[in-house]
Amino acid sequence: MKIVVAGLGIIGGSMAKALSKYTDHHICGVNRSPQPLRAALACGAVDEIGSTDSLADADVLILGIYPEAAVQFVRENAGKIRKGCIVADTSGIKSSIFPALEALAKENGFVFVSCHPMAGKEKNGFEVSDADLFCGASCILLPGSAPQKAVDTFAGLMRQIGFGKIVYSTPEEHDRMIAFTSQLPHAVACAYVMSPCCPKHGGFSAGSYRDVSRVANINAELWSELFISNRTSLLAEMDLFIEHITQIRDAVDKGSRQELAGLLHKGKLIKEELGE
Amino acid sequence: MKIVVAGLGIIGGSMAKALSKYTDHHICGVNRSPQPLRAALACGAVDEIGSTDSLADADVLILGIYPEAAVQFVRENAGKIRKGCIVADTSGIKSSIFPALEALAKENGFVFVSCHPMAGKEKNGFEVSDADLFCGASCILLPGSAPQKAVDTFAGLMRQIGFGKIVYSTPEEHDRMIAFTSQLPHAVACAYVMSPCCPKHGGFSAGSYRDVSRVANINAELWSELFISNRTSLLAEMDLFIEHITQIRDAVDKGSRQELAGLLHKGKLIKEELGE
Repeated sequence: MKIVVAGLGIIGGSMAKALSKYTDHHICGVNRSPQPLRAALACGAVDEIGSTDSLADADVLILGIYPEAAVQFVRENAGKIRKGCIVADTSGIKSSIFPALEALAKENGFVFVSCHPMAGKEKNGFEVSDADLFCGASCILLPGSAPQKAVDTFAGLMRQIGFGKIVYSTPEEHDRMIAFTSQLPHAVACAYVMSPCCPKHGGFSAGSYRDVSRVANINAELWSELFISNRTSLLAEMDLFIEHITQIRDAVDKGSRQELAGLLHKGKLIKEELGE
Repeated sequence: MKIVVAGLGIIGGSMAKALSKYTDHHICGVNRSPQPLRAALACGAVDEIGSTDSLADADVLILGIYPEAAVQFVRENAGKIRKGCIVADTSGIKSSIFPALEALAKENGFVFVSCHPMAGKEKNGFEVSDADLFCGASCILLPGSAPQKAVDTFAGLMRQIGFGKIVYSTPEEHDRMIAFTSQLPHAVACAYVMSPCCPKHGGFSAGSYRDVSRVANINAELWSELFISNRTSLLAEMDLFIEHITQIRDAVDKGSRQELAGLLHKGKLIKEELGE
């Protein structure tokens, strides 16, 4: 197959590297700026530097582009995409872009399968992309109304490049879950490091600090798009979280060891039941 | 030297194992229940099962006991402790116990050096103790008015068992920093997992979920004692954190991408300046 990867940041770059490492498909890279393309060609992540004209005979198009920009890219190039081509975005939010991409697919005769690789790093760009980024990770697929055969082809590709698990979902469920599993931890990390104690933590910190603060090194532009595109679900999770941490705060304030232990014990039970 | 380790949980057990592995000192274990003592003797973590009578010729006494219980243990056995013995607690809070332990040391002729090993696991008990738990970790020492020679002896021991860094502090500074580096992340983790999405996270989660939720598997009894003993500092950190996450929440609510990106970018800058 000919696979075009458009957008060679950490996700697109890792997709290209993984596809080159683990499959025999022909990988063609497309990117706005030339630097990552040259790097990708030099290290063998892509077989060819392409352009939007490369979409004319692509079997698969993977979009490693920010959500709104992905919709814009597909809209602008819809006429160039080969009929029957499987087009997959890799965005971190779905409800706000899924209907537009599905409509474009129907109008233009290509197949849309949405995908969210549950893997990343606290750094960005092709430089930190990694052929093994997806090893063992979960891949969320949102097939929508795509034909089963295309979904199976795409899921097979994802398994080949190392994903340990394929989870099928809908845009609504995806966005609700991601608000909790991914967006809220990023908001928490940024709020956490704003304490004036943070710059002085060295020597006084260990795993707890490291873990809760890790993702504060955020791509602010991307994540503000993701947060606001998923406003309703994220606000619900943030409000719940603020309510729960305020309960813990109030128990500390009252000095009620029993009430506090009861609240903390809830956390313990939830993790224990999950076997974590 | 003869070193008595009283309280063979994860910290005391790891101290005993590390001292046995990395030094030639004679290690004597003391514990309320017999089970961990038998396990410690069987695996070579201690050379001898002792009792409070073992304190009579101890050169060093390390307390792996909850904070208030540590004060009580020392108070009850103060008369038995050899004059000149170095007594070190390993508690996670200091201001609320330091004056009592320092006074007991003066009255009874032993030397008090307070210590907080910045290492742990999200599980407890002798079963999960580990000779290499402290490898590379930071050891906070609060020498108070202890003679320099005793402080150097104890710091030397800590280096021998693997600590990568010794940081000297005061009870007040320690408690202020620990509220941020350790206690707040534990409160955050417990509040986080209380979302109804948590039990369904499988397949939708990756590193962000894993990291922020890790320490929710908490020893509720110990941590409610630690939280309430450090009420003032912890409340200050919790209030700041709630204020900052509420700012992020409000920017999401307003849909102001610029304001939100500005807030998230603060987090990025703080981590970048720390080189993390």
